[in-house]
Order: sequence, then structure tokens, then C-alpha cells
Amino acid sequence: MKELDRATQLLEDIKQGSYRALAQGISWVENNLTGYEELLMRLDGNQNAKVVGITGPPGAGKSTLVNSLLHYWTSTGKKVAVIAVDPSSPFNYGALLGDRIRMSEFYTNPNVYIRSLATRGSLGGLNPKIIEITDIVRSAPFDYILIETVGVGQSEVEIAGLADCTIVALVPEAGDEVQTLKAGIMEIADIFVVNKADREAADTLYRNLRIMAHERAGAKTETPVIKTIATQKQGIEELASTIQTFLDTQNELPEKRLHLLTEKSWLLIQQYKMQGIDRRLLANAVKDALTLPDFNLYSFTNSYIHKLEQYGG
Amino acid sequence: MKELDRATQLLEDIKQGSYRALAQGISWVENNLTGYEELLMRLDGNQNAKVVGITGPPGAGKSTLVNSLLHYWTSTGKKVAVIAVDPSSPFNYGALLGDRIRMSEFYTNPNVYIRSLATRGSLGGLNPKIIEITDIVRSAPFDYILIETVGVGQSEVEIAGLADCTIVALVPEAGDEVQTLKAGIMEIADIFVVNKADREAADTLYRNLRIMAHERAGAKTETPVIKTIATQKQGIEELASTIQTFLDTQNELPEKRLHLLTEKSWLLIQQYKMQGIDRRLLANAVKDALTLPDFNLYSFTNSYIHKLEQYGG
Repeated sequence: MKELDRATQLLEDIKQGSYRALAQGISWVENNLTGYEELLMRLDGNQNAKVVGITGPPGAGKSTLVNSLLHYWTSTGKKVAVIAVDPSSPFNYGALLGDRIRMSEFYTNPNVYIRSLATRGSLGGLNPKIIEITDIVRSAPFDYILIETVGVGQSEVEIAGLADCTIVALVPEAGDEVQTLKAGIMEIADIFVVNKADREAADTLYRNLRIMAHERAGAKTETPVIKTIATQKQGIEELASTIQTFLDTQNELPEKRLHLLTEKSWLLIQQYKMQGIDRRLLANAVKDALTLPDFNLYSFTNSYIHKLEQYGG
Repeated sequence: MKELDRATQLLEDIKQGSYRALAQGISWVENNLTGYEELLMRLDGNQNAKVVGITGPPGAGKSTLVNSLLHYWTSTGKKVAVIAVDPSSPFNYGALLGDRIRMSEFYTNPNVYIRSLATRGSLGGLNPKIIEITDIVRSAPFDYILIETVGVGQSEVEIAGLADCTIVALVPEAGDEVQTLKAGIMEIADIFVVNKADREAADTLYRNLRIMAHERAGAKTETPVIKTIATQKQGIEELASTIQTFLDTQNELPEKRLHLLTEKSWLLIQQYKMQGIDRRLLANAVKDALTLPDFNLYSFTNSYIHKLEQYGG
């Protein structure tokens, strides 16, 4: 009962806009601290903040886009949270000093909250608690939550499953390869950005993306393609208004919400099922088994699962 | 007992080099057909074929590299299997017709076996059965197994966890962004390839990679960096010999094998734990729950897990 009260109080403070409470809530969840489950179970279904995901290959200028959107939105009075799960992002503390200094203006802006998260593996992949953390940030009075992730190699759900609007940033060099992206990226992009649009091949990439978007759309609305030069803040106002238009139409699509919630629930179940299984203990067991003359990974894993089920875990 | 005999016979045929048996074995595993578990449990620990992973962002020329390595290795009498899990790969049946025709010579080469696998999500991510399938292919008499995957956004294990040697292909445009790759990619690259080395920025990228490799290496061997122009087959012989040298030294590193086996076992446990959980049934349950006035994802998921545990699943 006491935990419930603490969780209720913390959630109330988060809703009132306390960054201190927000940081604490995230920390509860990240570290499985007492009360974190109560906090999660008390989250409202109706959260105003919209989650905008920005993804794309390394070098597509995602961070500069985030930077420009932050500038634009805060200049129009919006409150914005940034969650950086890209290990190369300057919003991430692991990044280069120079970039960090470039971003420092936002760290003191009261309308901006920046949180960097560790990635799961060294190659990226979202933080294992990204679903819960995003839901907590959604409870705070932000207008937008920007999530920056690297890569086009993650599973669909990890990027698009979290965001109300997913922006895929590409650079002109990708122009001649745009066909090869077709298989996956069209599925998750709500908006394409051709960044570094002053480069030579930008027009080709832009044209190819437009053709693809047109071919695929059929009776539906075509995926917008926006040209930006984020370093010069060109095209950012158009991008921001395209995002808002997209979000407005999304409110009318309950099936997208259902898909999103199902994916989140699936990942939460997976997390639950794997809790208590310790990677180091597993490694030790593999090491022992390897001393046997006829080690077989599948027999080993079967008997390990059997042991877990017998003795708990 | 009968399944055991069928599995033993099939494994024997695979070891003898029957592509028909190999295709059948893969199909057993892919579709959970009767006997697949027996087949997996009879795999030998000592398999000669070395697994070479090729990864990198879209447009890095991974397929052309695979193509060139195939040419080179088959011309020197090697037997090679290609597993394409990149949806954009011309080795994948989903690819463009033109690319498929370009590859067709290999489909009739008796020393080459090509298998394309569906990716998990539309954005990539390896096939859920990639571990088992690779282990089955390893039982066949190949010298090399090339696995082509897209992306630098997957979790480390998915790429590097499968391969005895991981090649990361980059293109010159990435030159000025190479610092941003540092966080993750250095961890998984056993060999760097600067492909399209005739492009202007190739020397800068090459030099930056060499510097990074040197800085990181310390007392250990530096990660090799190879320049190629895969479309003209330049640098391929050097790449092949660098791969072989790397593989030869790897044989002396038992801790890498231990790490690899632990990661594989972890993923197999996860697969096991999630079996019987049906995404469509989950979606239906979410849909029902959404009609309640105060839907909360975490309460819903908790009670869903409770129901699963009560009624099995």
C-alpha cells in the first residue's frame, strides 16, 4: 500500500512536469526498483505527447535533424523530450565531446528534456526497457517525444512499434540503391527525409522515393518525402508541419494503435519469460558442458531448460 | 525410434554432400517438421565449414562482395554455401529480376549452394531459425558458409554471434562519419572492407579506419582493413587470404567459441519460452481489453501472462 502511494505521488509529480520526478521514474523502471510495477500499472491510457521516431543509417544526419526540430518546436513554444538510443548520437553521453558541446544549449532549456539510454548490444538495438520508459515520458506534459535510433537493420517493431510517426532519414548517396531498400523501409516510414539535400544526387533520391511512394500508395495517401539541409535548418518547418499533419490523421486509425499495443505486450511477455535467466550462469554451464567429448548445443540447451524448470529460474 | 533413424539418415546424406538432403533438413527445421529436434541433437560438434558473415549498411556493395568471393573461392576449388538474410540481396528470391539474372550462374554451379531466408521483420533482423539452419549447413562438406545480412542496427549477437569471421563493408561516403560508427562496429568487425575503393573519399575512409584499428588494438592484432572494388574483382584475392589468416588464428581462441555458444543457447531458450504464444490471439485479447474504460498495457499483460500460466500456452 505504501508503494502504491509513493508510485501515485511520483506519477502525479511527473504529470505536473517535474523533471526530477521523471528522472526518478525512469530510474525506477531501468533498475527494477521497488514501486516500478505500481508506477507502470497506474499510467493513464490517454497521453497527449506524440512519439516521433527518427531512424536511418549512420551518416544520414539524424542528430542534426533532431537538433533542428528541437530548435523549431521550442521556438514555437512546444515542450519536447528526446530519447537517444543511438550510441553515436550527440544526445547520448557516450558521444564525442565536440558534439556534446554543440547540444549543450538544450540541456539547460526548461522546455527540453534529454535522456540517453544504453543500447542492448554494442551494435545497437533498443534499450530493453524502452517501452516502459517511453510510456513514463508520455505521462509528462510534453508535446512531442523524439526517439532517435540508428539503423535500418532492427526489427520493425523496435522502431515503428514505438512511435506514432516514424521518420526515415536518407542521404543522397543512397540514391542508386533506393530500390534495395524497398523490401523493408517502405513498411515503416511514415515520412521520408532526404537530408543533405544540397548534395548532387539529392534530386535523384528524392525522385526515386516519390515514385516508390506513389507506386505503393494505391488508393491510400502517399508517404510524404521532404528535402532538408538540417545543418542550415532548411526544410525543417515543412518537416514539422508534415509530422503534425500525419499525427492528426493517425488519431483516426485505431488499428495502428492495436498493432502497436500488441507488439509492446509481446515484448513485455518475452521480458517476463526470460527474467531470472542469468547470462553468466548460462555461460558457466556451457563452459562445463564443453569439456564433454560430444557436446551438442541443442541437447545442452534442452537439459538446461529442463533444469531451470525443475529448480526455478 | 523411427524419427531417430530418419534424422540419422538425413544427416548422413547431408554430410555426404546431398543438396537435396540439405534442403530437406533446412525445411524440417524451418517448419518444425517431425524429426527436426532429433536432427539437431545429432549434429556433430566438429564441423569444418567456416562461417563468414558479411554485413554493412545498404549500398555498401555486400552482394557484389559475396559474388566476387564466390568467384574466387570456386575458381580455387572450394565449396561454398551462401545464406542470404538480407531482403535486398540479389541472392534472395525477393530481389530485383536483373540482379537475380546476374547471379544465376551460381545456381547451377555444383560447388555452390544458395539459400535465401526470410527476415524476421520487414526491416530485417535475422530469420528466427538462423542458428539452427546455419548449424545444419555446417554439417555439409563446405569450405565456407557466407552469411549476408543488412544493417548495422542489429544486436551484436545476431551478426557476429553466428560467424567465425565478420566482415563489415563500408563505402567511401561513410568517411566523415566513421567516428560515429566507433561505438559499435569496431566491436564486431574482424575485417573491414572499404568497397568501391575507386571513389574519391576512399583514401580518407581507409586512413580513418586504419587509425581507429590501431588506436584500439593495443597489444592485440589490429583489425585488418582491405580496399576492394568488388564490381571489378579488385582486392578480392587479398580479402580471401585475410579471411583465411583470420580463421586460422581464431582456432586458437576458445573464449570466442564459448561466447558464441552461450549467445546461441540464450536465443534458443528465448525461442522455447515463447513457443505456444500466438501473436494473433494476443492481438484479439488486446482488442477486447481496449474496450474497457481504463485500459493499461501493463495490467493487461500481467493478467494475460497469468492466464497463459493457468491454462498453458
